[in-house]
Amino acid sequence: MATQVDTKIAEAQIHHLMDDWARAARDKDIDGIMACYTPDVVSFDMIAPLQYVGAEAYRKDWQMGFEMCQEPGDFETRDETLAVGADVAFCHRLSRMSGTDKEGNAFDCWVRWTQCFRKVHGKWLIAHEHISVPLDMQTNQALTDLKP
Amino acid sequence: MATQVDTKIAEAQIHHLMDDWARAARDKDIDGIMACYTPDVVSFDMIAPLQYVGAEAYRKDWQMGFEMCQEPGDFETRDETLAVGADVAFCHRLSRMSGTDKEGNAFDCWVRWTQCFRKVHGKWLIAHEHISVPLDMQTNQALTDLKP
Repeated sequence: MATQVDTKIAEAQIHHLMDDWARAARDKDIDGIMACYTPDVVSFDMIAPLQYVGAEAYRKDWQMGFEMCQEPGDFETRDETLAVGADVAFCHRLSRMSGTDKEGNAFDCWVRWTQCFRKVHGKWLIAHEHISVPLDMQTNQALTDLKP
Repeated sequence: MATQVDTKIAEAQIHHLMDDWARAARDKDIDGIMACYTPDVVSFDMIAPLQYVGAEAYRKDWQMGFEMCQEPGDFETRDETLAVGADVAFCHRLSRMSGTDKEGNAFDCWVRWTQCFRKVHGKWLIAHEHISVPLDMQTNQALTDLKP
């Protein structure tokens, strides 16, 4: 069982990782973003396919995302919960993704974002990520205009 | 740091919880399903709203889901990964949800399913759940017909 001090240290380390991740996402720094993930990361992204298995596949997804955005995206975050154990942790939050795509169209969408972490050789990394919006069962439309 | 024996015990306890959960879901046992969640569970479900906060809100969502299904739903699961720490764990998988709704329409859909666990007073419970399908960015349609 982790002590309270261990937990505080782990929380600080994971917040540091999340700051590095957010900075790399804003700066379209592909090496910086991939340094935050385990080699065997499994990601359930907003877009198809159902899953990206492994860092190599997920790198291509991030690269495509960076190319689709004309300017660095912006994140607003709320309702964040972080649960930390000795070497496993998880975090969930709502994130507002806004920016302008390559064709100059503005986008602005609240998404649900879950990140799961493992401590590997003394370093916290993201081992699983799940990003989505809900769907409307009647119309099969993805609900990209919901506000928290 | 958890020992290998601790980890094996925790894995067995969480699998037991997941078996209880799956049985309650099949049997439309609302008390059985809610016994698997922490009182402060936060769920990102397939349908709106963006999040269900707390067991009371999530109970209504499950109740509605049970009422929508004519017969007990069936789950097929693949690509399951479970990462277990001393008192925090997470699991992700692809699940095939199939059955018949109240109007007699068959449904059959592969979804991404993430569950995050906390050990509370010696008992593992689900503290966070995230269920979704990807979307098509061009059409804004939810992709409910993807196969792994």
